[in-house]
Amino acid sequence: MVWLTGLSGAGKSTIASAVAADLRNRDIAVEVLDGDIVRRDLSHGLGFSKEDRDENVRRVGFVADLLSRHGVVVLVALVSPYRAARDAIRSGRTPFLEVFVNAPVAVCERRDPKGLYKRARAGELAHFTGVSDPYEPPISADVECRTDLENLEESARKVLDAIGDAIDAARLVEKV
Amino acid sequence: MVWLTGLSGAGKSTIASAVAADLRNRDIAVEVLDGDIVRRDLSHGLGFSKEDRDENVRRVGFVADLLSRHGVVVLVALVSPYRAARDAIRSGRTPFLEVFVNAPVAVCERRDPKGLYKRARAGELAHFTGVSDPYEPPISADVECRTDLENLEESARKVLDAIGDAIDAARLVEKV
Repeated sequence: MVWLTGLSGAGKSTIASAVAADLRNRDIAVEVLDGDIVRRDLSHGLGFSKEDRDENVRRVGFVADLLSRHGVVVLVALVSPYRAARDAIRSGRTPFLEVFVNAPVAVCERRDPKGLYKRARAGELAHFTGVSDPYEPPISADVECRTDLENLEESARKVLDAIGDAIDAARLVEKV
Repeated sequence: MVWLTGLSGAGKSTIASAVAADLRNRDIAVEVLDGDIVRRDLSHGLGFSKEDRDENVRRVGFVADLLSRHGVVVLVALVSPYRAARDAIRSGRTPFLEVFVNAPVAVCERRDPKGLYKRARAGELAHFTGVSDPYEPPISADVECRTDLENLEESARKVLDAIGDAIDAARLVEKV
């Protein structure tokens, strides 16, 4: 399970898509659980309070776990701003890579691909991470992608390398 | 995707477990999505109104679809009392077997494995299917298990045969 966390507009979905495409090309089973789709198909009715976000993270973790059990590499692209909620997933039984998709909020706000920062600044969106809600960065992410300093290819490569290492490590464990 | 629908106490989970065990013994990837677990891990916060039940069914359908895509046989054991919600899943892209786990409400109530009928009759549970809420039986289920007239082995055998036929049919399609 590869968990991409970071601000809206940091590039989580873009990196997840690029990584997924590369894995699929190598016939590795992969699934992307993207925040927007998850909100529609799994968590309709949940809001953006800490409680609801944590429930959303738990739910996505549950589904990712189900898929992982069957050998699917699951890429989760979700703001998931609270450290404890992410750490709870990490402590589960599924091998977990935390990817911190990191760009300063000013950069994310300039990109604003969905116009959400604009709406948040206008006071139309409550609980908006980075504007009116906190983001707790990972303390020891397995991978950090600085999307303001590196291009998509570099970011995707880092994630792919970490996945490769994790798969190799799992194989070694199986052999022992 | 194998969808077991029927009243509480009709035997859905029991049949799903037996079928899953048989498939696992044959190294077929299988996952059971049981109503109780689903309510905790996917649909915490949803109630039992028609609207919430339909949302629950959609959500389970979404997860079952994700798993099915990766070659997992998914057994869903869920009251899912509304025909239209089940038919919406059936009309999706994943091959779908509807299993009507059928026993008269009087029989289910006598079994009452979780004490829910008792609580429903005492007025402690609103929206209880078969007592205070309707159950819309399938019109043309792929399999019907009459759990008041047949034993577990017979019921599981019917479901396994239907799964076997569906897998054979899918293989034939692949060859064409």
